[in-house]
Amino acid sequence: MDEIRLIEVKEGILSESQAMANRLRERLRSTGTFMLNLMSSPGSGKTSLVLRTIDALKSEFRIGVIEADIASTVDSEKVAAHGVKVVQLRTGGFCHLDAAMVSEGLDAIGPQDLDLVIIENVGNLVCPAEFDTGANRNAMILSIPEGDDKPLKYPLMFSVCHVLVLNKIDAMGVFDFDVRTVEQRVRVLNPSIRILTTSCKTGEGMDNWTNWLRDEVEISRRKPG
Amino acid sequence: MDEIRLIEVKEGILSESQAMANRLRERLRSTGTFMLNLMSSPGSGKTSLVLRTIDALKSEFRIGVIEADIASTVDSEKVAAHGVKVVQLRTGGFCHLDAAMVSEGLDAIGPQDLDLVIIENVGNLVCPAEFDTGANRNAMILSIPEGDDKPLKYPLMFSVCHVLVLNKIDAMGVFDFDVRTVEQRVRVLNPSIRILTTSCKTGEGMDNWTNWLRDEVEISRRKPG
Repeated sequence: MDEIRLIEVKEGILSESQAMANRLRERLRSTGTFMLNLMSSPGSGKTSLVLRTIDALKSEFRIGVIEADIASTVDSEKVAAHGVKVVQLRTGGFCHLDAAMVSEGLDAIGPQDLDLVIIENVGNLVCPAEFDTGANRNAMILSIPEGDDKPLKYPLMFSVCHVLVLNKIDAMGVFDFDVRTVEQRVRVLNPSIRILTTSCKTGEGMDNWTNWLRDEVEISRRKPG
Repeated sequence: MDEIRLIEVKEGILSESQAMANRLRERLRSTGTFMLNLMSSPGSGKTSLVLRTIDALKSEFRIGVIEADIASTVDSEKVAAHGVKVVQLRTGGFCHLDAAMVSEGLDAIGPQDLDLVIIENVGNLVCPAEFDTGANRNAMILSIPEGDDKPLKYPLMFSVCHVLVLNKIDAMGVFDFDVRTVEQRVRVLNPSIRILTTSCKTGEGMDNWTNWLRDEVEISRRKPG
C-alpha cells in the first residue's frame, strides 16, 4: 500500500520536475547559456574532469559550476581555486538533483553572465538518471576500475546520456576492462551516444572531450531562439 | 508541497521497514542464521568479495546469497557457479533494498538450511544506507580508485556499517589514496568500525576479512535465544 502511494507521489514529482526542467531550458536559452549535467558513480573522476575542462576552456567561455554533494564542500573549494564561479548545493539525504534544486543553484550563480554551466551531480549511477535537471546535455563517466559490466546493471543511466566518458584509461593494464565490450553493451541501450576515452590524470584524450563540449556549446548558440 | 508529501510517505515506509527488519532478525535467530548486508559503489568489488568469501568459508558454513540488481543476472550466475544457493532480486528502478525485498529473498532461498546469508545490495553509496535490511551486520567496501574523500561526501554509509573493507589495494600505486586519512575521516563518523584492507584480485588481506566474518557468525550463534 505504502509502496503504491510512494510511486504515485514520485510520479507527481517527476512530472512537475519535468515541467520545471523545460522552463529552465527556456531560461538558459534566453541568456545564451549551455548547461551540462555530469553524472557518475562516486570516485569516477567527475571533479577531475570539471577541473580539466575549466583549465582547457576558461579562456573561451565564461564558466560556472554547480556542485552537488550530500555533505562537505571539498569539491567546490577545488573548483573555486581554478578561478570560476561555483555554488555548492548540499542535498542532505537526497541522492540526486532535480530541476528545482538546479534552479536554486542557477539563481545563486547567475547564468546571465555565463556561457557554460556544468552541474556535478551526486555520485550515484541510479537515481540521478531518473531526473531531468534542465540541462541541455547529459554526460556520464564510467571509470576503468568500475568494470565493463556496468551497462548491464545500470541501463537507465547509459540510456539518458549524450556522451559517455571512459576515464582512468591510464589504469587500463591494472584492471580487466574491455572497451569494445562496453561499447557494444552501451549501443544496445543508446545507439547515438558518443563514447570517448580519457585520463584526467595524464590528460590523455582530453582534446576529444573539450572538442565535443565546445561543439555542443556552439551548436546550442546557433539554434534559433 | 509535493516534496513534503514525499518525505512523509518516505518516513512511513522507513518506520514500517524498520519493524519488518526487526521481525526478520527474529526469524533469522530462530533458524540460527547470520545475515550480512554488503554495500558499496558500483564496481568496488562486492561480487568478487562474495566469491572469495564463498571459496574460503563454504566448507565451514552453509552459505546463501541474495543478489540485488536493477537489471541483469550476471552476478547471480557467477555466484551459482561457485556452488552455493543464490537468489536474484531485480529491483527495477529501485536504488536500494529494504527489509520487505530481503524478506522475499529469504523466502526464496530458505534460511532454515543456511548458516550465513550474504546480501549483495544495489551498487550505491547513498540510498541503501537509509534502510535496515534486517541483516545482523552491515559491511561496506570502498575501493582504492574511488579516492580517500568518500567519507566526507557519503557520511551516512560510513556511519551505519560495522566493517569497512578497503579493496583493490593491489592498485594502491596507481591512485592517490591515503589509508590513514580514510581511517581518520571514518573514525570521526563511526569510532567502533572495523577497517580492513584487501585485494580480491590477489587475495591479499582476505584472511582478516574471513576471520572477522567467521567471528561474527560464531558470536551471533552463542547469543541467548
